[in-house]
Amino acid sequence: MTVEIICVGTELLLGNIVNTNAAFLAEQCADLGLSCYYQTVVGDNRERLLATVKTGLERSDILLFSGGLGPTKDDLTKETVAEALGLPLVEDASSRKLIADYFAMRGMMPTENNWKQALIPQGAWCIENKNGTAPGVGICQDGRYVFLMPGPPNELKPMFTESIVPFLRKLEKDVIASVTVKVVGIGESAAETLVADLMEEQSNPTLAPYAKTGEVHFRITAKAESREAAQALIAPMKKELEARFGAHVYTTKTEVTLEQALAELLMGKGYTMTTAESCTGGMIAARMVNVPGISQVLKAGFVTYANEAKAGFLGVKRETLRTYGAVSAQTAEEMAKGAAQAAGADVAVSVTGVAGPDGGTLDKPVGLVYIGCYVRGQVWTTEHRFSGNRAKIRESTTAAALVQLRKRILEYQAKEGEGTDGRE
Amino acid sequence: MTVEIICVGTELLLGNIVNTNAAFLAEQCADLGLSCYYQTVVGDNRERLLATVKTGLERSDILLFSGGLGPTKDDLTKETVAEALGLPLVEDASSRKLIADYFAMRGMMPTENNWKQALIPQGAWCIENKNGTAPGVGICQDGRYVFLMPGPPNELKPMFTESIVPFLRKLEKDVIASVTVKVVGIGESAAETLVADLMEEQSNPTLAPYAKTGEVHFRITAKAESREAAQALIAPMKKELEARFGAHVYTTKTEVTLEQALAELLMGKGYTMTTAESCTGGMIAARMVNVPGISQVLKAGFVTYANEAKAGFLGVKRETLRTYGAVSAQTAEEMAKGAAQAAGADVAVSVTGVAGPDGGTLDKPVGLVYIGCYVRGQVWTTEHRFSGNRAKIRESTTAAALVQLRKRILEYQAKEGEGTDGRE
Repeated sequence: MTVEIICVGTELLLGNIVNTNAAFLAEQCADLGLSCYYQTVVGDNRERLLATVKTGLERSDILLFSGGLGPTKDDLTKETVAEALGLPLVEDASSRKLIADYFAMRGMMPTENNWKQALIPQGAWCIENKNGTAPGVGICQDGRYVFLMPGPPNELKPMFTESIVPFLRKLEKDVIASVTVKVVGIGESAAETLVADLMEEQSNPTLAPYAKTGEVHFRITAKAESREAAQALIAPMKKELEARFGAHVYTTKTEVTLEQALAELLMGKGYTMTTAESCTGGMIAARMVNVPGISQVLKAGFVTYANEAKAGFLGVKRETLRTYGAVSAQTAEEMAKGAAQAAGADVAVSVTGVAGPDGGTLDKPVGLVYIGCYVRGQVWTTEHRFSGNRAKIRESTTAAALVQLRKRILEYQAKEGEGTDGRE
Repeated sequence: MTVEIICVGTELLLGNIVNTNAAFLAEQCADLGLSCYYQTVVGDNRERLLATVKTGLERSDILLFSGGLGPTKDDLTKETVAEALGLPLVEDASSRKLIADYFAMRGMMPTENNWKQALIPQGAWCIENKNGTAPGVGICQDGRYVFLMPGPPNELKPMFTESIVPFLRKLEKDVIASVTVKVVGIGESAAETLVADLMEEQSNPTLAPYAKTGEVHFRITAKAESREAAQALIAPMKKELEARFGAHVYTTKTEVTLEQALAELLMGKGYTMTTAESCTGGMIAARMVNVPGISQVLKAGFVTYANEAKAGFLGVKRETLRTYGAVSAQTAEEMAKGAAQAAGADVAVSVTGVAGPDGGTLDKPVGLVYIGCYVRGQVWTTEHRFSGNRAKIRESTTAAALVQLRKRILEYQAKEGEGTDGRE
């Protein structure tokens, strides 16, 4: 069945808040095997809301509404949906009682417009709101289902998962499963070219590429009558992608991030890691610390933004800084070595570059970055030229540093004949 | 004029990502005085996208598209919009050159599908993308305006503000001016209560609160026939807010960030700064490095995630760690002092806390954070209890650390009788 998410609220149209309800509901629906083709945001305006409801009823089997159930006169969702469906509003005794209890419990008197929340379209059913006064509403008409939920995420989310998901599960017998093959060290177009034939013939499972900074994610999604059957459909395509991308694949788990894959690679070897950052100014360490339990791996990191700091904390030779400059392969190499030594770490990654907007020269333009990787005595340096604004260059540098370090650890292990490909 | 925001992407329909582009564009349009009545999310599907474009063209003057401009065959926005408008696609020489240069700079060969990005609808104009390969597109037809932007926020945001906002400003004959009074160190509801009366009677200028992590932004927007007239309408309300929030206001400039305000405060005094981070793992230093030219202020920073690192690099006493634990006011204090000494900095900020999801105890639950601030020999520590997941707790900690440090520097200066309120 198809589902449409309609979020009602002027604060969304003004950009006062980000629409996290839509993302939450969309993800939940995908897990339920429901196809979501449209999300709409509309304000608390009768005409436009009415038009949106009618369009939704024409093109989707299930409409999920968020917002506009409050007691104020701005809240029009229930009235307008009822109008679109040609249903009168009637008072629901149970929700009138719930509202009375809610206020009694707080020793407050409900105002007249609070009782408005006890009205529901004829033939609809109330959905209890354990976290607020506005009850949800469920409506079934001509094989179409409409659910009205309050806008506050802490009211909508439990209401949806506890009361609406079980209902929807009965409607959709197919389930959807998906895995994400995450690839690094290869550009989006090049990566897609490598699997162009698979994209051609895709139907079930489907294959969709998502470009991230420094990464390409391929999401394989299958629909079947059981989770097992869906996973069986996914398996061969997953195997094929892993074969084609080889060590470029760092994980096939949707929830595993690059920093997590790197952390698990390090933990697997019992290696400790440190960082020496100039232009990224702590972003690499911060990304590693995204991983819970990283203290096993990352004991310390250095932000050495000034030359004094590079010399003082990492032992970069003044001679090196004078001769080659702070932004040079030589400096990156000494930063990585020095950081590993200072922190007593097995591996270290260093970055030094020109993030801009100022400080670029003809031979050292904005976007020029050197990355140094140290793995147990061995050091590699690479030169990178990133484009974009200061934020983009630093983000690209951070991703590239993690990709480079992972690559070097795998190379080091391969040489050591420890052959693991570092995937989860 | 009316504007409609149409975001194209299966990732959004699957709930893989939250639609921050829509919130960003909506906020920008509100600033421009454009009325946004609809936001739509649709997938990379020709028929549904075509229907969405046609509906948008019927009901709105300006359509803003995000996503679907990439090189892959999933990316259909440009083709589909051109079809809806009845325009053929033609190659744009300048963007072909930009793409060639982009790859040449990286010593890479563009693949065939990269050239697809150089195609634009006949009569349209290209909008340079400084942060990626997909150029934006601007189209004007029968008094309607359509803008196509890439999906990645770090490409869309600068493209919109730098290239499209100036264009849209010309369309609206009334001039919109706005200032943002940015407030820290006071909660959202408390802040809103303080100006409830102003929110009540608002018309022109309008007053809209935006809650950010650790900050509340009040945007004052006025519409008038000239910039001067609009600014004249804004001035009294701005003055009133500054009076009510006092030193909680760190800037009234929309573009100035908290880290920038702090950096300018430090530069003004010629102070240098350092950081000692545990649970944030480099996020505080990384935020300071967002500010170009920060090398004047931030020479070095420490990520001391493990106790050994806190003791080794910052000289935190083993005794202190044993007696009070790593997450304690005492440790935060010694971290701040030790970092300032090690880096020879005038001011230092330290954080140590339990970011979770594990590691919480009854007396030291997840979310407990201690922040230490050192200013030229004086040290302050504060205890904080943040909620949310690991990422949210670390983000809140980072913001609170900058807020605390700013507060302490202002207090220090006030005591020194150097009375400046630290605003730009």
